[in-house]
Parts: sequence; C-alpha cells; structure tokens
Amino acid sequence: AEKVLRFPGEVGVTMWEMGKEDPRRVIHSIKVGLALTLASLLCLLESLSQGIGQNAIWAVMTVVVVLEFTAGATLCKGLNRGVGTLLAGLFALFVEYLTADRPMPRAVVMGWTVFVIGAAATYMRFIPIIKKNYDYGVMIFILTFSLILVSNYRIDNTTKMARDRFYTIAIGCGICLFLSLLVFPTWSGDDLHKSTIAKLEGLAQSVEACVGEYFGDDQMKEIQDELSKDSIDQNCIKVLDSKYTDETMALYASWEPRYRGNCYKSPWQQYVKFGVALRRFGYTIMALHGCLHTEIKTPPSVRALFKDQCTNLAGEVSNVLVELANSMRNRRHFSLEILSAHLHIALQDLNTSLQSQPQILSDSMNRKDSRISHTTSFDANSSPLLESKTARPPEQVHGIQKVLRPQRSKLVIASLEFSEALPISAFASLLVEAVARLDHVIEEAEELGRIAQFKEYKAGEDVV
Amino acid sequence: AEKVLRFPGEVGVTMWEMGKEDPRRVIHSIKVGLALTLASLLCLLESLSQGIGQNAIWAVMTVVVVLEFTAGATLCKGLNRGVGTLLAGLFALFVEYLTADRPMPRAVVMGWTVFVIGAAATYMRFIPIIKKNYDYGVMIFILTFSLILVSNYRIDNTTKMARDRFYTIAIGCGICLFLSLLVFPTWSGDDLHKSTIAKLEGLAQSVEACVGEYFGDDQMKEIQDELSKDSIDQNCIKVLDSKYTDETMALYASWEPRYRGNCYKSPWQQYVKFGVALRRFGYTIMALHGCLHTEIKTPPSVRALFKDQCTNLAGEVSNVLVELANSMRNRRHFSLEILSAHLHIALQDLNTSLQSQPQILSDSMNRKDSRISHTTSFDANSSPLLESKTARPPEQVHGIQKVLRPQRSKLVIASLEFSEALPISAFASLLVEAVARLDHVIEEAEELGRIAQFKEYKAGEDVV
Repeated sequence: AEKVLRFPGEVGVTMWEMGKEDPRRVIHSIKVGLALTLASLLCLLESLSQGIGQNAIWAVMTVVVVLEFTAGATLCKGLNRGVGTLLAGLFALFVEYLTADRPMPRAVVMGWTVFVIGAAATYMRFIPIIKKNYDYGVMIFILTFSLILVSNYRIDNTTKMARDRFYTIAIGCGICLFLSLLVFPTWSGDDLHKSTIAKLEGLAQSVEACVGEYFGDDQMKEIQDELSKDSIDQNCIKVLDSKYTDETMALYASWEPRYRGNCYKSPWQQYVKFGVALRRFGYTIMALHGCLHTEIKTPPSVRALFKDQCTNLAGEVSNVLVELANSMRNRRHFSLEILSAHLHIALQDLNTSLQSQPQILSDSMNRKDSRISHTTSFDANSSPLLESKTARPPEQVHGIQKVLRPQRSKLVIASLEFSEALPISAFASLLVEAVARLDHVIEEAEELGRIAQFKEYKAGEDVV
Repeated sequence: AEKVLRFPGEVGVTMWEMGKEDPRRVIHSIKVGLALTLASLLCLLESLSQGIGQNAIWAVMTVVVVLEFTAGATLCKGLNRGVGTLLAGLFALFVEYLTADRPMPRAVVMGWTVFVIGAAATYMRFIPIIKKNYDYGVMIFILTFSLILVSNYRIDNTTKMARDRFYTIAIGCGICLFLSLLVFPTWSGDDLHKSTIAKLEGLAQSVEACVGEYFGDDQMKEIQDELSKDSIDQNCIKVLDSKYTDETMALYASWEPRYRGNCYKSPWQQYVKFGVALRRFGYTIMALHGCLHTEIKTPPSVRALFKDQCTNLAGEVSNVLVELANSMRNRRHFSLEILSAHLHIALQDLNTSLQSQPQILSDSMNRKDSRISHTTSFDANSSPLLESKTARPPEQVHGIQKVLRPQRSKLVIASLEFSEALPISAFASLLVEAVARLDHVIEEAEELGRIAQFKEYKAGEDVV
C-alpha cells in the first residue's frame, strides 16, 4: 500500500526534476497548450459563421503535428506541410482536369490514380536526399492528394475545398510559427553550439581522469576504480555516440533564419564536421581508456618514470580542449600560438624522458627473456589458469561457469607475461597520437570560427 | 540542353538501382499504393451508403501515417494510434460528462480543457520511456482529444462520432496490419540480424586490411594508400555509428510477434548489447588504424621482424569474427574451443617474437639517444620545419597557408624523432588489446545464441 502511495509522489518528483533540468520543456508544453486553444477557438468562430466548415479541424491537426520543440524543427515541418499540401492540391486539380471528360467510371479512375501516385511517391521517399529533408512533405502530399480525390467524389467542388483546407492549414502553420519563432524561441543552433561545448569539456575531463587513474596508486585506487571508470567512459561515449543527434540538430538549425550580419554561409555543417573530428579524437581516448583495463600490468616503478611527463602532456591536451570550449562559448577565435606552445614543450619533455630511459624498456624485456623458459610449456588447449595464479583477474574467480571456461583470451594474455614495457609504450604512443588528432580538431575549430565569424581573440576579455 | 535531357535519365537510373539494391522497397511502395486504394474505395462505398460519412477520411489518413517499411514499425505505430484514439475518445466522453450540467459557457470550458490536457500531455512526451515507445500514441491522443472536443461543439452527438472515428481508424489499421504482416512482410528483426552479420564481416575485413597495410611495402603501396585507407575506415566507422539504427531496429523488432517455439525472452535487446560490445572492439580497431597514419615512422626493417606474427594474429582475430558471422547466419552456436585455440597460439607467437627481439627495440632507442643532441635546439615557438627536413610529410608543403603555420603538432611530432620502437610496440599492444576486447564480443555472442536459442554446433554442416 505504501508503494502505491509513493508512486504518484515519485512520478511528481521526476516531472519536477525534468522541468528543472531544462525549463524550456515547461515553456514548450505551455506553448502547445496555447496553440491548441487558439486553433480550437478559431475553429469555433469560423464554424459558427459557417465560413470554413468541416475543414476547420485541419488547423488543430496542423498545430499538433507541426509545433516541435525547436524553432528549426517547427519551420522544417511547417514548410514541408504547407508546400506538400499546396502541391497535392494543384496536382489533384490537374488530375480532375485531365479526367473530367473521360467516359470511364470515376471510381476506377480514382482508384488507379491513388494507387499510382501513392506507390510512386512512397518509392521516392527512399531517395536519401528526400528522406533527409522532405520526408514529411512527401507524406503530407500523399495524404492530402488521396483525401482530396476521395472527398471530391462526393463534394464536387474541388476548388472551394482545396482553398478552404489550404486556408486552415495556413492558419495552423501561422499560429505555430508565431509561437515558435517569436515567443520564447528555442533554437536548434543554440543547442548544437552548447552540446559542442559540453563535448569539448567532457573530453577534457576524460583525458585528465584517464591519465590520472593510469598513474594513480594501484592499491589505494582499487576501490574507487569501479566507480570512476564508468564515469570516465561515459563522457567519452557520449561524444562517440553523438552523430545522430548532431546531424538532426544541424539539419533543423539549417532551417532557422538567423543570419547575423554578413555571415554568407551557415556554419551548421561545420559543427557536424567538427563533431566528426571530435569523434576521431575520441576513438584514441577510448583506446587510452582501454590501457587502464589491460591484462598486461606495468609495475608502478616503470610507470613512475614517465608519470610527470605523461600527466603533463595530458594536462596540456586537456587545456587545449578547455580553451577551445571557452573560445566557442564566447564566440571568439583562439590563439594558436598560446595553445600550441605548452603542448609542444610537453611533447618534447615526454620524448626526452622516453629516450633517456631506454635501459628500463630493454631491461624489463631482458628480464622477461630469462623467464620465458618457464612459460613455454603453455598450450592453447590446456588451462592457463593453472599456470598463472598470480595474474588471475579477481572477477574471473567468481562463479563456477567462469572457471569452467579457461579459454578466455584475457587469461591467456595475463598468463603470457607480455613485456612490461609494451603497455607503457602503447600508452605513450596513444597520447602522442591523441595530440596528432588534436591538430585536426583545432583545424576544424579554426574553420568553424572563420565561417561563423567569431570575434578576434584578445587576451583576458573572457567572461567564463 | 543535353544536360536537361540527361537529367531524367539519371534520375531513372538512380531509381532503378535503388530498387535493385533492395527490392523490398518496390514491394513496400506497391503495398502503400494498394492500401491507399483499398481505403479510398472503402470510403466511397461507405459514404455512398451514408454509413460512416465524413469520418471516412480517417481510414485514408491512418493508412498513410501507419504503414511503415517494416512490420514492427507498422505494429508499433498502429497500436499506438489505436490506443491513443481510444483513450482520447474515452477521456473526451468523461470531460463531457463532468461539464454537462455546469452553468459556464461551453467555449470557456473547452478552451481550458484543451489547454490543460494539451500542455500536460506534451510535457509527458519528454519523459524518456514515453518518448521512446509511446511518443506517437501521446501525439494522437492530443490530436483526437482536441478534434473531438472541437467537433462536439457543433455536432452534439459525441458517442456516434467517437464510434465512427474509431471504426474507420480500425479499418485503416486493419488494412495496414494485413498488408504488412501477411503480404511479403519485412521484419525489423531480420534487418537487425543481417546488419549484425554485416558488421562482423566488415570488422573482419577491416582488421586484416589494416594489418596488411601496416606491414605492406611502403613505396609500392603509397599510391593505393589514399584509395584503400578510406574504405578500411568506412567499414569500421559504419560499425561505430550504428548505435541509433540498431536501437531503432531493436525497438521495432520488439513489437513483432515472432516467438519461435519456447523462446521465452525476445533476443533483440541482446542484439543491442552485442552491438555495444562490437563498438567497443571497433574503438580499438580505429586506434589501430590511427597507427597507419602516425607521424612517427617505423623503419621497414623493424616492422619486418614482427610482420608474420602480427599478420598471423590479425588473421586469427579476423577468422574469429568471420566464424561468429557464419554461426549467426546459420543461427547456430559456435565452438569456443576451435575459435580460441588458434587465436591463443598466435598470441603466444607474437609474445615470443617480441621477447626474443629486445635488442632491436633498445638498439633503435640507443641510436636515437645519440642523435638527441642534434634536436635539443628545438624551441616550441621556432619553426620545426627547418630542423626536420627529412621527416617533413609531403602534404604539408602544398599551399602557403600550411607553411605559415609551423606550430602544427604533427610537424613537431615528426621533428622530435620519437623512438622508432614506440609505434611498433603500440601497434602490437593494440592488437593484444583487441584480442582482449574480442573476449567480450564472444561472451555477448554466446549469450545471444543462448537467448535466441540457436542450434547446437556441429562441424561441417554450414551452408554459407
């Protein structure tokens, strides 16, 4: 009984938090309610004066279907709907005109026309460019065309009906556009801009946390490990999975009429390109994360040799990302010199320390070399568990099923005692690779700043 | 003029190829045409007998909106539409009943009800679980509810109208379900299954091509390089970007009534999980691809030492993926022993060769070590171009703009002359990492086979 009582409370809390998280949701809901009421009342007025009649319901329908969360989406749907209806009306008139004097029964003509046009238009919806931009418009075209033909069969006054329907849909679209463009508008472009900044900051955190964890104290961190590694991954995965939302937002943003000054070209496609560069950068960071969970353990003493340089380089990479995020937030260019200088010094430091410690790498290899005789008794079909008790990861022990599957590659990798130098050099190499990818990110950010005509960079004028 | 003449031809060719690529598109288009015609004719018959009247257009509308490409999507939309309409009708009756005896003007009551219900329902659409599964149903609810209230204002016969509309929508849904479930059905589940197989095969190709290119002859491959590297990447990127389509297909598949035998649990969510494991594997492969384009060049002589082992290991990884794809295609389990045996032998070979060649790694490092005095004059703000003529990548020379930006990290990395052993050990380490990730893929594939109740494995019964 308590659970039943608590349920509405929980739903209420969820609803409240959803609104607090993004108050525009509340505004959007109120706007939809308002638009519906306006359209309904308009219908009532019109139907009382017998002006538009039964077609009045189309205004309500238009409002429900067209009014979307962002201005761009509303415009896109509204224009698609308007143009689709108009074309369908004209086409229906044309078909009427063609078939007016034929001796065939009208039902046959109608049936065939609907069949052919419906099939052809549906087929056209598979063309990628139409699917992307005009899918909704083609659907409305099919819908309106069939409805007009069917209704005509009885009404025999095509022009009036098409005109009335067009008026009501225009009224509906008008209400939607007014509310979505002029009353507390929500712009897709802004969302895209903000999500790009959030991605940059998420990646910056991710890089630092990853390197921090790699060089952190093994014993102490063991406990927090499970907790933090998921959150590190999440930031990164959010970036990697952002393709679809990015492209949708950019598509809607490209419908939004917001050309400031002489911005001759819409920057939204550049945001998508920037997103691609970020994802490519993110793949390297994901691989870096992979090093955290690798089965080949590098002893802390070897790690400690490169700790400062790697942490330093990661810090610089993260700084570059944060600086890019700040420049975007303030819609200004950034200074390539300042960005690169520290980064390149850090790169050089890492290189110097890698080159000054070759004996560590070769030592650890030679040590392995002497041990190899102990592990050559390994056979792929025997159980590596028995041979590598020390290296056995703890999670493999739980559950009998796990023990009964000794062929897991993880165990084999752990038992093979790969060179200890392998993971640390992979880690360093991936960090260097990440810096190279960062180049591409910076290039696209510069291009974005150019196209979107950001302000010139002046030191110390940021309001963060 | 020639261009104008050629344009319809080109469109025709595109259309034809689109149909050849996936003939189900043609079938779907014909189905839509057929459904439209049926619905239209039904409307005519009904309106001639004055049975349903103006509401008949709802059957046409339902067909246009509900009939989707796959059976799952149609069912999902059809049920959403049916339930949404039903609930809206009941709710409208309830509101009528509540407000029947009040002394307020009816327009005011209607305006407020529409506003409150519209806003509340729109707000509910932001709840993630509703957005994912029932977004369309809630939209139809708002639509139908407003329309019934508005129409009622004039008609004064709520029950008959609600009943008529429900009948016509039921007729429309019936036509759609009949055509989509019984006539040449297209199943989302099959698409998901096939796309998963294609992803496995794409990754297998990608791994082999990547390693092949890494160890290939530099001079000879330079030309094909640009061509092939894009196609290698494409396979991988297709997998990495598949999240949204996977989830959509799984969502629709979960609506499809295809429980074979005693399959107690739908396997579609497991396909999504398998996709996540594949993407995680894919990140490592992308990082491996990154090694192809790294600025630190490993001399072919060093590469050649590990060529056979790495190629061998990559071949085995690719074999595992192909075997997984085959087992899925034949809907059977796979033999873990056979899969793992070769893989683990290849792993061991690579390990042995890495451990037997430590002097190469340390030699190359010592060689670098003696050269370091030449490069310590490096300064982050000076132009590394001048200091590293040999390492300068050819593409940086083109265009004056490129030369004017000497701070590119790529150039700095090239000029720093990182240890030559760094990239090869990173490459090997990433390969080993990929094998570890493959574990997770295999686990999820086993789970998938268990849930979807694939056949037992018997050697040599595949029909590939």
